[in-house]
Amino acid sequence: MKSPGGKPDPVVVLMTDFGLGDTYVGQMKGVILSICPQARIVDLTHAVMPQHVALGAFFLERSLPFMPPRSIVVCVVDPGVGTSRRALALRTARHTFLGPDNGLLTPVLDLVVPGGCASITNPEVMLPDCSATFHGRDLFSPAAALLAGGFPFGELGEQVDISSCARLSSTGCRVERDGSIEGHVLFTDHFGNLVTTIDTSLCANPREWRIEAGDIPPLPVVDTYGDAPEGELLAYGGSFGTVEIAVRNGSAAERTGVRDGTRARLVRKDGAVCGHGGPKA
Amino acid sequence: MKSPGGKPDPVVVLMTDFGLGDTYVGQMKGVILSICPQARIVDLTHAVMPQHVALGAFFLERSLPFMPPRSIVVCVVDPGVGTSRRALALRTARHTFLGPDNGLLTPVLDLVVPGGCASITNPEVMLPDCSATFHGRDLFSPAAALLAGGFPFGELGEQVDISSCARLSSTGCRVERDGSIEGHVLFTDHFGNLVTTIDTSLCANPREWRIEAGDIPPLPVVDTYGDAPEGELLAYGGSFGTVEIAVRNGSAAERTGVRDGTRARLVRKDGAVCGHGGPKA
Amino acid sequence: MKSPGGKPDPVVVLMTDFGLGDTYVGQMKGVILSICPQARIVDLTHAVMPQHVALGAFFLERSLPFMPPRSIVVCVVDPGVGTSRRALALRTARHTFLGPDNGLLTPVLDLVVPGGCASITNPEVMLPDCSATFHGRDLFSPAAALLAGGFPFGELGEQVDISSCARLSSTGCRVERDGSIEGHVLFTDHFGNLVTTIDTSLCANPREWRIEAGDIPPLPVVDTYGDAPEGELLAYGGSFGTVEIAVRNGSAAERTGVRDGTRARLVRKDGAVCGHGGPKA
Repeated sequence: MKSPGGKPDPVVVLMTDFGLGDTYVGQMKGVILSICPQARIVDLTHAVMPQHVALGAFFLERSLPFMPPRSIVVCVVDPGVGTSRRALALRTARHTFLGPDNGLLTPVLDLVVPGGCASITNPEVMLPDCSATFHGRDLFSPAAALLAGGFPFGELGEQVDISSCARLSSTGCRVERDGSIEGHVLFTDHFGNLVTTIDTSLCANPREWRIEAGDIPPLPVVDTYGDAPEGELLAYGGSFGTVEIAVRNGSAAERTGVRDGTRARLVRKDGAVCGHGGPKA
Repeated sequence: MKSPGGKPDPVVVLMTDFGLGDTYVGQMKGVILSICPQARIVDLTHAVMPQHVALGAFFLERSLPFMPPRSIVVCVVDPGVGTSRRALALRTARHTFLGPDNGLLTPVLDLVVPGGCASITNPEVMLPDCSATFHGRDLFSPAAALLAGGFPFGELGEQVDISSCARLSSTGCRVERDGSIEGHVLFTDHFGNLVTTIDTSLCANPREWRIEAGDIPPLPVVDTYGDAPEGELLAYGGSFGTVEIAVRNGSAAERTGVRDGTRARLVRKDGAVCGHGGPKA
Repeated sequence: MKSPGGKPDPVVVLMTDFGLGDTYVGQMKGVILSICPQARIVDLTHAVMPQHVALGAFFLERSLPFMPPRSIVVCVVDPGVGTSRRALALRTARHTFLGPDNGLLTPVLDLVVPGGCASITNPEVMLPDCSATFHGRDLFSPAAALLAGGFPFGELGEQVDISSCARLSSTGCRVERDGSIEGHVLFTDHFGNLVTTIDTSLCANPREWRIEAGDIPPLPVVDTYGDAPEGELLAYGGSFGTVEIAVRNGSAAERTGVRDGTRARLVRKDGAVCGHGGPKA
């Protein structure tokens, strides 16, 4: 499928912790369209909790399969803005990613193609008065817009050794010796569902497991909302590819009082040892 | 008015109860642009209260006149996702609507053209690993993007008898024997205005009426905010085509303590019997 | 950089106090794309506090440098909708602005080109049933979309004398006789940063100053977040071009209890009299 004129418009995806309560995101979009008027801008989300790099990395990882091919993905969760932390540009076979060198881009580090890791240092890709507080607007947005318009990746700045890039140490999900799987509640979604870090690919047949979290009595893992009576707690493989705890047509967060960060543990119902595969690529 | 290349880009409108607190909506947009790069995506709203099908239907009905011609309108308020509820596609003379068969699409059922009611069952219009929890992303988005790119409506799945589709029993607005009009406060908007279900077309001359709601003393219906002193409660025909209660430059919700669901009643000032027309088409 | 077909698509920027909690903004977008399908719509923000005209004007002023050239900028913070307040259209060398005549457009009044100030009165640029409550949808959106599609500015309505337009009396920032600079906390951003009205251009070397606000002990002004220890209060020239008070990796609003409207004062550390330049153009 093509645009009328031939080549499809370039897509710039934005993920930040800026929220929508003021003009931060709007200014980024203005900068992008000033430089590349034909860009299509997609908000992946601006609701990463402020400075929660691990949550940003999770959202990024879980959204990779759904990002349009060839998109430029701008990720800004950047507590170190204005310090000496580097501004990275990473190319994979499908996408280009821009963001601070603080672990946020961990999920794509292993996908980078040879020559596809740069530190953005060329002042020509930044706004003339680049601030020390808002690289999302003054550095990442113009760099993304230029790339979207055909600017060569190699001119963003110097090549960087990928092994030197900051990497989060853990996805927050670990298979224990006894076969149980340890994780935690990462965040609570709009419906009050408790989204854990426990990847459903680690438990081949979800229905053979039950989950323990905080003070909640152990819950069997079922296939979908419809498998539980209205108003009952249930656990299932959710839309992020991890185990979630929910109340059908209600809020599990309200019901249970469980908060982000609470330890969660997946245990086989029959007590057998888990024959697990690797985590989702 | 046409795009430079000729045909205007197709428009996909989204209305959901997903909120903007995570990546649900962003993933839907990624899927749409992956399949149909030239789609223009419009957020009607993502703030339908979770699983509040009637509010979604109200927003849809009241927004129909403003949706661009030929848009594909994706509506997802879907407590039954993963159960056997059908996924519908409906064509009217002006638009195409996709959404669950749970009453959400009630406002367009009577506008469907012959042959324009289908159940989306063709696996080729779904993502390869269609989840049981997120048909907004895995079924409705790809189906919408394919339609936007020219995929034939008839190949979405089997034709369905429109009379078999779920329909909300009531719009929440009823003319009583004594000529009064019964409804309720459906939701509270960003300004604290109390938006009722009472259609202003039912009362030909709004100024001949007063409204009663909860413990609020009966209020005359006026033409607009400016007709009340600053800080005073007033009622008027609002932007949704229904009667609203507001405080000029203040919040009626805070002032009155009235909550969503509170009964509201429109009564003639002179006590005469109402000569009413039909509800708005 | 050009679109495939030649001319880039027109850009319509939206700034309102409508929030995203219902369909107000979505209906505006529907109207715009119904009239001008090739428009690119950018949300500057919809989170101006309800009816806070001064905050809207601040957001507008501080975002002007980042708005794409030739954009049509629709600004709606409009407590007087439905009264006799005029609907303005203003042209500057770079942009066109539409909004109510209530001071919201103050930051662009001095930039208007000759013949570039009109009152929108031509009924042909409004929706047929223009409401008394929602000119954002019924008047400003169609007018913007028509302009975006090439409709002549001169046919919006009658020319108006720019000196007759409502103007906010003050930017909330004033240099005192003793050289100190008086302002206030205008709003709190998503990170809990306290954004003041004090323009950083008034203090040539920020590090020569300290700030006083509410009960906070006087704070030195530093260059960026990284110049303060984690968890400490700091002040710096922020992303809006004004002085902000923040906590590195924390919320200054929570820490200090300081609320919007609190008086703030910038004082030279050495007590010397300020040799200030003019406010930012």
